[in-house]
Amino acid sequence: MVVSVKIAFDGTNYHGFQIQDDVPTIFGTFQEALIKILGHSTDIKGCSRTDRGVHAKCFILSFETHKNLNLSRFPLAMNANLPIDIRVIEANEVSEGFHARYDAKGKEYTYYILNSHIDDPFNNKYYYKVASNLDVNKMNEAAQYYVGYHDFRSFMAQKSNINDCHRTVYSAKVEKIDNMVIYKVSADGYLYNMVRIMVGTLINVGKGLYEPEKVKEIILAENRAEAGPTVPPQGLFLTNVFYD
Amino acid sequence: MVVSVKIAFDGTNYHGFQIQDDVPTIFGTFQEALIKILGHSTDIKGCSRTDRGVHAKCFILSFETHKNLNLSRFPLAMNANLPIDIRVIEANEVSEGFHARYDAKGKEYTYYILNSHIDDPFNNKYYYKVASNLDVNKMNEAAQYYVGYHDFRSFMAQKSNINDCHRTVYSAKVEKIDNMVIYKVSADGYLYNMVRIMVGTLINVGKGLYEPEKVKEIILAENRAEAGPTVPPQGLFLTNVFYD
Repeated sequence: MVVSVKIAFDGTNYHGFQIQDDVPTIFGTFQEALIKILGHSTDIKGCSRTDRGVHAKCFILSFETHKNLNLSRFPLAMNANLPIDIRVIEANEVSEGFHARYDAKGKEYTYYILNSHIDDPFNNKYYYKVASNLDVNKMNEAAQYYVGYHDFRSFMAQKSNINDCHRTVYSAKVEKIDNMVIYKVSADGYLYNMVRIMVGTLINVGKGLYEPEKVKEIILAENRAEAGPTVPPQGLFLTNVFYD
Repeated sequence: MVVSVKIAFDGTNYHGFQIQDDVPTIFGTFQEALIKILGHSTDIKGCSRTDRGVHAKCFILSFETHKNLNLSRFPLAMNANLPIDIRVIEANEVSEGFHARYDAKGKEYTYYILNSHIDDPFNNKYYYKVASNLDVNKMNEAAQYYVGYHDFRSFMAQKSNINDCHRTVYSAKVEKIDNMVIYKVSADGYLYNMVRIMVGTLINVGKGLYEPEKVKEIILAENRAEAGPTVPPQGLFLTNVFYD
């Protein structure tokens, strides 16, 4: 059977998703627990390569096993073998050939900006703090320029070398709840650091460094230097993955 | 001038509020920062003695100083000298003779119960997990028996020796938001472990171990052994303090 698994994790103590030698990763930690449960090793596919320090409220993995697993009991069994910062939420049987990454039609990311000069003593690992006042309406106006099919080269880390930088952003929204400015974006795919550079650019708009319309020019410039800074990973959450 | 200060803190790494030798406390940590800011020591009053591991979203302290402090800048100055798990929210000048504890007319506590068999990887320091299904309506019905002026001896830790165990509960409510069962209680004062024993008793009702009406009998019994268990401190937050 092929199984898709939904997990959530706090990325603070991990070097991202992808397995690496000698450092803790989400993949490596999940794989170790899975081998204990299955009694055999198997090829695990993840829906995305999340960066070091990025979190996920919804991350999809898939694997194949010849065992007839009781999937309703699988989360409990896995969670007993995982550290508390990685939790298996649910598991479902999927059709032969399902691939968590290639079959994903899109993903939603959410970025949290605490707009205050006072940190939150409880959730300080889960936002980026900006003390200066942010104009949320202008940020949301600016975010609408991201929507659509564009070359997002301006929003890609310079060390990345990808040829086709076209992506389709389905929706983008900035809203404020209490002191928290929340950016939600859905797209068919993302370039390296794309969401974090989008947010850095929106913060510049929110601070009044430039007008919302400038975002249109930044996209057209196809030049990383035109966009805002890359904000830190701890405010970023993968919040949804879409399949047919 | 006499100053009242509102702080919030994550109690996980502290041995409660009251100062003790050789262990970190909220009082000791706050005092150390305050002496740096004031340049002199002063008598600090806290609104309550919170237990080890209990948190506060609103905790009031008061102190006197001969300096003419700029109170709008005080939070920033203090926060630069405090660990991130204690934050000063605001400071206000109050009348001569104000005492954070004796002048408090009441306090509100909130207790968080995660009613799920899966932990939350992000907030796992801030709730008590109960996997078995809880009947929230019955819990709320039971909580209404707490309201009023009663002898709460059944809800006091046995090691405590207080003569007058009468307290007035102004309001008590149990509600569920997503997977979180939230108990909010306001009273003019609390006995040692009172909220945590109230919650342990409500959980027994929620599990169906006894009917809501049993809570009335438990109060009348004036016997700790009749009430439910003392739930752990990490789900408990002081959320409001009332003054005239």
